[in-house]
Amino acid sequence: MIVLKLGGSVVTEKDREETVDGAALEEAAAAIAAARDGGVDDVVVVHGGGSFGHPHAEEWGASTTEGVRDVDGVTAIHGAMTTLNKFVLRALHDADVPAVPVHPLSAAHRDRDGALTLPSEQVATLLDEGFVPVLHGDLVAHAGEGATVLSGDEIVTSLADSMDAARVGVCSTVPGVLDADDAVVPEIRSFDDVENVLGGSSATDVSGGMAGKVRELLALGAPASIFDLDALPAFLAGDEPGTTVHGDR
Amino acid sequence: MIVLKLGGSVVTEKDREETVDGAALEEAAAAIAAARDGGVDDVVVVHGGGSFGHPHAEEWGASTTEGVRDVDGVTAIHGAMTTLNKFVLRALHDADVPAVPVHPLSAAHRDRDGALTLPSEQVATLLDEGFVPVLHGDLVAHAGEGATVLSGDEIVTSLADSMDAARVGVCSTVPGVLDADDAVVPEIRSFDDVENVLGGSSATDVSGGMAGKVRELLALGAPASIFDLDALPAFLAGDEPGTTVHGDR
Repeated sequence: MIVLKLGGSVVTEKDREETVDGAALEEAAAAIAAARDGGVDDVVVVHGGGSFGHPHAEEWGASTTEGVRDVDGVTAIHGAMTTLNKFVLRALHDADVPAVPVHPLSAAHRDRDGALTLPSEQVATLLDEGFVPVLHGDLVAHAGEGATVLSGDEIVTSLADSMDAARVGVCSTVPGVLDADDAVVPEIRSFDDVENVLGGSSATDVSGGMAGKVRELLALGAPASIFDLDALPAFLAGDEPGTTVHGDR
Repeated sequence: MIVLKLGGSVVTEKDREETVDGAALEEAAAAIAAARDGGVDDVVVVHGGGSFGHPHAEEWGASTTEGVRDVDGVTAIHGAMTTLNKFVLRALHDADVPAVPVHPLSAAHRDRDGALTLPSEQVATLLDEGFVPVLHGDLVAHAGEGATVLSGDEIVTSLADSMDAARVGVCSTVPGVLDADDAVVPEIRSFDDVENVLGGSSATDVSGGMAGKVRELLALGAPASIFDLDALPAFLAGDEPGTTVHGDR
C-alpha cells in the first residue's frame, strides 16, 4: 500500500488563517481518483494542518512535546483540524474517491516519554473494504502533558511502519530537496548526501523542516519520494519524481 | 472508573428525526458536572444514536452484521452520529465538563467473524489527563462487510472490560427492569431472575432490547445499574438506583 501525505501548505493557503486552497485540493483529489481508475486502490491519505491547525496550536502553546490541558484549547485545535479534514473529504468525494475520516485524537496516545501508539488495524480494514482512509495532523492524549500535537509527518512514518507500506509520497510545495544550485537532488541514501545543503545535524532546522523530514524518511523501510503537486500523478503511477529517500534499514 | 451510557432515546427525541432532547441533555450534563464537583472525575461517557443514527442506518440497510459499502451511506450514518456527538459535547462544555470526542469509526474494527477490537489506551490516557472521553454509537470497518453498526451498548461492554470499570451505568427512559406488576426489579444475578418478564431465551426480543441488554451486562465483571435520568445523580453519587445487574463472572 501507499501512504500519501498532502502537506498542510499544499491544501491550505498558509498565510491566510483557515483558508483552503480549493484549486490545489481539487487537483490532488483528481490525481487520486485517476490513479484509482488506473488500478491504484490502496492509498492512505494523511494531510497536515496548514493554516487551520498551526495558528490555534501556537495560540494555545501546544507542540509535539508541550501539551494543552484546557479543553477549550483541545476543542479549538482539534476542531480546526476536523474542519480542514471535512474540506479534504468533500474534495475527494466530489472526485468519487470513497474517503472516510480517521481522526488521530480518537485512536492514538503518547506515553510519558512521548512515544506514540497509533493503532492501524482500523485503517487497514477500511482500506481492505475499498475505502480511502484520510488521517490528519491532530492533537493526541499524552500522559503527563494533557494533549500534544501529532504532526502529519509523524502519522506518515508510524503508518508506513505499522502497515508495511510499499511506498511513501510526500506532496509538498517544493519539487524535492534542493541542492546549493536549487536543482532537485534525485536520490538520498544517507544524511551525509545532503548535509551540506540541509544544514547538518544541529537542532536548528533552517530548511523549513526538510532536514527533519529527510531524517525521518531515512528511518523508514520503504522508499519515500518528496515532490510537488504537479508530480503527484507521476508518483501515483509508480514513478519516483522529485527526491526519493531510500532508507538505510 | 465509571462507564456511563446515555441512551439514544434519553438524549434525542426518538420520534422526530435528528432532534436533540435539549432539556434531557442539559440535565445529564448538569448531573455529570455536579458529580465532578463532588470528586467523581473518572467517568467515560457513551451515547447512543437515537433519532440521529437509527433512521440513516435503516435507510442504508446497515446493522451490526449487515454492512454498508457505499461511502455515501458511511458519510450519512457516521455524519449523523458525529452531529449528535457535537450536541452532547456542547451540553457538557456548557456545564464545564471537559468533554473530548472519541469517534469509534476512527479507532475500532471488526474481523470476519464480527469480533470487535476497540483500543482503549487513548480513552484511558484522556481520562488520566483530566478529560471526559465521549464515545458514541457509530459505524466501524468490518472485514468482508464494509462498515457495520457499532451500538453504544457494545461500546459500553467493551470499555468496561478493557478498562476494568468499577461500575457501569445505563441511563435509559425506563426506571429499570420492570416485573409483571411494572415494579422495578432491584437486582438481577442471573437471567433466570427475570426470564419470566423479559421473554426467555428466544431470539425475538419483545422487551425493546432489555433482554439483550441484561444478558450483556450479566457477562461483565462490574456491577451495572439500569435507571432513568432522574436517578443519574444518585448513580453518580455511588448509589445503585433502578435495577443493578451483578454479573456472574
